[in-house]
Amino acid sequence: MVNVAIVGASGYTGVELVRLLHAHPSVEITCVTSRQSVGEELAAVFPSLFGRIAHVCDDVDVDLVCAKSDVVFTALPHQTAMAVVPAFLRAGKRVIDLSADYRLRDVSVYEQWYQAHTSPELLSEAVYGLPELYREKIATARLVANPGCYPTSVALALKPLLQQGLVDVSTLVVDAKSGASGAGRSAKLGSLFCEVNEGFKAYGVAGHRHTPEIEQTLSDVAGTPVRLTFTPHLLPINRGILSTCYAQFAAALSIGDLRDIYQQQYGDEPFVRVLPEGVWPNVAFVRGSNFCDINLTLDPRTGRVIVIAAIDNLVKGAAGQAVQNMNLMLGINERQGLEQLPLFP
Amino acid sequence: MVNVAIVGASGYTGVELVRLLHAHPSVEITCVTSRQSVGEELAAVFPSLFGRIAHVCDDVDVDLVCAKSDVVFTALPHQTAMAVVPAFLRAGKRVIDLSADYRLRDVSVYEQWYQAHTSPELLSEAVYGLPELYREKIATARLVANPGCYPTSVALALKPLLQQGLVDVSTLVVDAKSGASGAGRSAKLGSLFCEVNEGFKAYGVAGHRHTPEIEQTLSDVAGTPVRLTFTPHLLPINRGILSTCYAQFAAALSIGDLRDIYQQQYGDEPFVRVLPEGVWPNVAFVRGSNFCDINLTLDPRTGRVIVIAAIDNLVKGAAGQAVQNMNLMLGINERQGLEQLPLFP
Amino acid sequence: MVNVAIVGASGYTGVELVRLLHAHPSVEITCVTSRQSVGEELAAVFPSLFGRIAHVCDDVDVDLVCAKSDVVFTALPHQTAMAVVPAFLRAGKRVIDLSADYRLRDVSVYEQWYQAHTSPELLSEAVYGLPELYREKIATARLVANPGCYPTSVALALKPLLQQGLVDVSTLVVDAKSGASGAGRSAKLGSLFCEVNEGFKAYGVAGHRHTPEIEQTLSDVAGTPVRLTFTPHLLPINRGILSTCYAQFAAALSIGDLRDIYQQQYGDEPFVRVLPEGVWPNVAFVRGSNFCDINLTLDPRTGRVIVIAAIDNLVKGAAGQAVQNMNLMLGINERQGLEQLPLFP
Amino acid sequence: MVNVAIVGASGYTGVELVRLLHAHPSVEITCVTSRQSVGEELAAVFPSLFGRIAHVCDDVDVDLVCAKSDVVFTALPHQTAMAVVPAFLRAGKRVIDLSADYRLRDVSVYEQWYQAHTSPELLSEAVYGLPELYREKIATARLVANPGCYPTSVALALKPLLQQGLVDVSTLVVDAKSGASGAGRSAKLGSLFCEVNEGFKAYGVAGHRHTPEIEQTLSDVAGTPVRLTFTPHLLPINRGILSTCYAQFAAALSIGDLRDIYQQQYGDEPFVRVLPEGVWPNVAFVRGSNFCDINLTLDPRTGRVIVIAAIDNLVKGAAGQAVQNMNLMLGINERQGLEQLPLFP
Repeated sequence: MVNVAIVGASGYTGVELVRLLHAHPSVEITCVTSRQSVGEELAAVFPSLFGRIAHVCDDVDVDLVCAKSDVVFTALPHQTAMAVVPAFLRAGKRVIDLSADYRLRDVSVYEQWYQAHTSPELLSEAVYGLPELYREKIATARLVANPGCYPTSVALALKPLLQQGLVDVSTLVVDAKSGASGAGRSAKLGSLFCEVNEGFKAYGVAGHRHTPEIEQTLSDVAGTPVRLTFTPHLLPINRGILSTCYAQFAAALSIGDLRDIYQQQYGDEPFVRVLPEGVWPNVAFVRGSNFCDINLTLDPRTGRVIVIAAIDNLVKGAAGQAVQNMNLMLGINERQGLEQLPLFP
Repeated sequence: MVNVAIVGASGYTGVELVRLLHAHPSVEITCVTSRQSVGEELAAVFPSLFGRIAHVCDDVDVDLVCAKSDVVFTALPHQTAMAVVPAFLRAGKRVIDLSADYRLRDVSVYEQWYQAHTSPELLSEAVYGLPELYREKIATARLVANPGCYPTSVALALKPLLQQGLVDVSTLVVDAKSGASGAGRSAKLGSLFCEVNEGFKAYGVAGHRHTPEIEQTLSDVAGTPVRLTFTPHLLPINRGILSTCYAQFAAALSIGDLRDIYQQQYGDEPFVRVLPEGVWPNVAFVRGSNFCDINLTLDPRTGRVIVIAAIDNLVKGAAGQAVQNMNLMLGINERQGLEQLPLFP
Repeated sequence: MVNVAIVGASGYTGVELVRLLHAHPSVEITCVTSRQSVGEELAAVFPSLFGRIAHVCDDVDVDLVCAKSDVVFTALPHQTAMAVVPAFLRAGKRVIDLSADYRLRDVSVYEQWYQAHTSPELLSEAVYGLPELYREKIATARLVANPGCYPTSVALALKPLLQQGLVDVSTLVVDAKSGASGAGRSAKLGSLFCEVNEGFKAYGVAGHRHTPEIEQTLSDVAGTPVRLTFTPHLLPINRGILSTCYAQFAAALSIGDLRDIYQQQYGDEPFVRVLPEGVWPNVAFVRGSNFCDINLTLDPRTGRVIVIAAIDNLVKGAAGQAVQNMNLMLGINERQGLEQLPLFP
Repeated sequence: MVNVAIVGASGYTGVELVRLLHAHPSVEITCVTSRQSVGEELAAVFPSLFGRIAHVCDDVDVDLVCAKSDVVFTALPHQTAMAVVPAFLRAGKRVIDLSADYRLRDVSVYEQWYQAHTSPELLSEAVYGLPELYREKIATARLVANPGCYPTSVALALKPLLQQGLVDVSTLVVDAKSGASGAGRSAKLGSLFCEVNEGFKAYGVAGHRHTPEIEQTLSDVAGTPVRLTFTPHLLPINRGILSTCYAQFAAALSIGDLRDIYQQQYGDEPFVRVLPEGVWPNVAFVRGSNFCDINLTLDPRTGRVIVIAAIDNLVKGAAGQAVQNMNLMLGINERQGLEQLPLFP
């Protein structure tokens, strides 16, 4: 059994890590931290855990966490994460960081979209934790930067197209929609039930921080710099991201050929499902699971390809992908602890 | 007082017409029909009306409806509508048809997307009921084809851009999202609460019937044939459409200039609100009202313009716009009966 | 036109007062206040109001409010309300207070459930603003204490039973459920979308502050002290309260007789609807309206009567009832400004 | 590995059985049936299963089902279930029936609330599958009648009180609320998204079919005939039942003593959680899990005890309890396959 710590367990990503790791056959949760709930049982913060999770929340004390655990999941806000991650590494721990702090390789890009970086020396070492792209590097990484929720869905949706140069990359538009858990568990007016329920709106239009992260991955895949328009929207649901991606098709292929390419690329992937023709991804079909569902078509009237991907933002978009990365780092079956079927309805 | 009939009152559009027309100072509802509820009180179908609406549902009997009313709203499915609209016109009534049957001017386009048309001779006479574009023609029309919900939002979002040739029309992408009332009030598996709630998906991808209707209007406005990619999605809310529109910007204008153009074009419009900078449309802000809220920006990194429009699909997208058209036809104040503020939250 | 002020306009009750009073033919909103938004347009706080409501938020300055208005609605939290209400009265204004501060006649009961009262001398003068019970007193009142949302639904549900001594008052149980807007518009963890959505729970069990208010009214009606068990629950919807009331029936009447009594008592009431047999109240049928829908039955197997009442907590449970009270105070038609049909769906 | 069949797999209970049994370490799903989807992949009915569940739906053919499986779960509507259950038993299979057909021991009670019974001879043999009450009998049963969702929550809430005679049983009132999946997956107008969402209502008032089932269990527990008032309501959520139970307390015990009794009775139960003082059950805290959460208090002002229980209606209220019963019948650990933590949020 591997001992794991969850640093920042009182957020939605934190409790999702607890849910998944508790069911994982090869690990034991040995430490959970929460600054605002030090000394309190985690089950008092989340009564869903009552009777099964007896852990008391520790403070975010690096020595304590290191004494208790071998692998550390940091589920902290950006900026807070990089205040502790270097210390965990120095103590010889392997870290899966779920914040944005180590995702961008270029420190100037990070500092343009976030703030000053306090451990830029780690950026070149950190491995971007998207197994479908970087599986081998993840296996040996000390520090995995777990991808953002939107970027995960977009990278998986577009990878086959960009890798094979099938679209005009200058025409990429991504219209994405996320459930409210993506906004976190802090008490903000805009996250109140009555402000979100029965509503729908865009936010961060032409300026969301996930844009450079998406572009970094797509540029990698395409082998050429990619810029896109990315527009996120807020859905009145708890969980789920659906990204609808558009690009001018630039290949002499039928939709059948194109589907074959997707099925080949993802046929062996344990968590990417290319759905049958005519079955469009629905966030309800991946709820609680680590799946990324994808489907696509060509619009014959405009020559555009439309690719749609759905994930559970808390699972494949955060905690589930983190566990998948941990499995790779530990050299165990990538699917361990992630076999649960989606919860429908 | 003008006597009005609502043919097809037991659907969501029907009951919304009742709600709006009941509060209208210049009209009286004198006839409501519903095939499946003949002889039943409409308030038995919709208890929300109890104690205020005493009407009993008639059958869809043209003579009866004509005897009781001067203006007829047909809130029927396509194909069913064109089975009765010609008779109402022959009887000298003015008709506002909320179905798709008279929206497309080209009968071959209609027949390609729907089915055979049984009164194609009326297509050239029918006026497309989007007041912001065709106000004068509506005023004298015998037959108004009330626009579809998606097309209303898209036409209003894009009109200023296309009219002034500010975008490359070959790059138009519209990603639209609608509440569940848009699917109507018939008992279908896909419309069940548990199938829709906490879900989100695209449908009619690269093939939704509103596509040719949108293209017809945009081509009119642009003065050149327009083809676009249009992708509708199903939102787990009762009411509301939000359309996010993308196009490559083709003018040497700042976002400030562009906002000025929108504000000029819509400054005198009673129901189009160009929101202040930074306030993005939210379907929750138009709920129950006839407003179309719009905002826009330029994505400096990609040179794209993003325009977002929100309406209540049952009001500006159906019943409210029908009342607005009726007001124009009757030569009364366009705002009559439509002054209610949105219901928030 | 009567000039009215809305003190505390940036809460959900405040914006609902704006919605209703804006449509009211006999009044003009001349002042809106909001401590946290002084100097800001109210339409910036609530974009639903944009283009129609141009008011800028004033501070809660008694002289300013009094200079601008004749009637004052105070939509403030308890304790905050009583800090300003006496000054409005001293300035000769008529006040409709939507807080709990003047609802309980017995200062010791108030102080047991809330905190020290700073103007107890007004308690005997304040009129409890439930028109169905105290219509005449309201008409001449200087200070109306607008009832709580739960108490309104319960009082209307049970009044006919208690007035005529038809039940054993020692057996009263009220199980009530409220939408999330009842919790107000402050940023609290428990009010976040993800904490409320897809959830349902009781709160304030055996200790909710509306209990003594309910008991005061029911005791009045029954002519004998009434104590009941009252359990509120939180519904994952924006608006609506449904109260299910139980009591041992103590009369030799059939359900038909009992329905007759309800219909007689409420037949002339403009906003109480005793629904037809078999049609149970649904909060969706009163949304946005001032209706209180009621239905009832006898459980022949246990000899209990079950009465169910539904209201929109922001309308009949707050702003709508306040407008109804204002109408009575001004001697105008009680229905003015409150004729809108419910918004369904 | 035990081979299990799920008869009636295309309903919400069916797909939940698939979800739970697929993760169960000791069984293999070897047969799924669905009358309306014969020959179709179950994953085409529920795309959530895609890529993991390859089963094709069989017809409900007894010989076929028996040839493929050792244990049969019948997830059919009442009346349909008893048309096949006897044949499965004759073929030597053990059956867990999730319908109402074998829950009531007295055939006349069944026929009064449902319709004629076609295999009344099995009623005395069938064991009511509530492990917390009938664990030993279940272990050896051929036919387990899996309890209804409401009855499960009520029986667990009230068992300690009734077993020890702590309340006046003539005063029992149960106010219950269920998510929409309880209404099943058939296309009915009343189950449409727009009819349920943002709504809340009672149904089956003083006449719901779960009443006699609840009374049978409570009478068993109390050792005396029990009659109660039971009022179900429809919640606008997918999953969850919350039952709020009231009774006049008849014992000289403090709330602390009473809590001790509950904790003793349920301390060893794997799926009943008596929550800490002040933490009230919330359906969101049991979502997707087999837990029944309970809490209680005494209302000192009225002498009533209030007990609240929450379950996931599809898990502890249906499929999960069925798996728990299967575990008991197979003599394996009762918790197998049911260890997943609730999905929150």
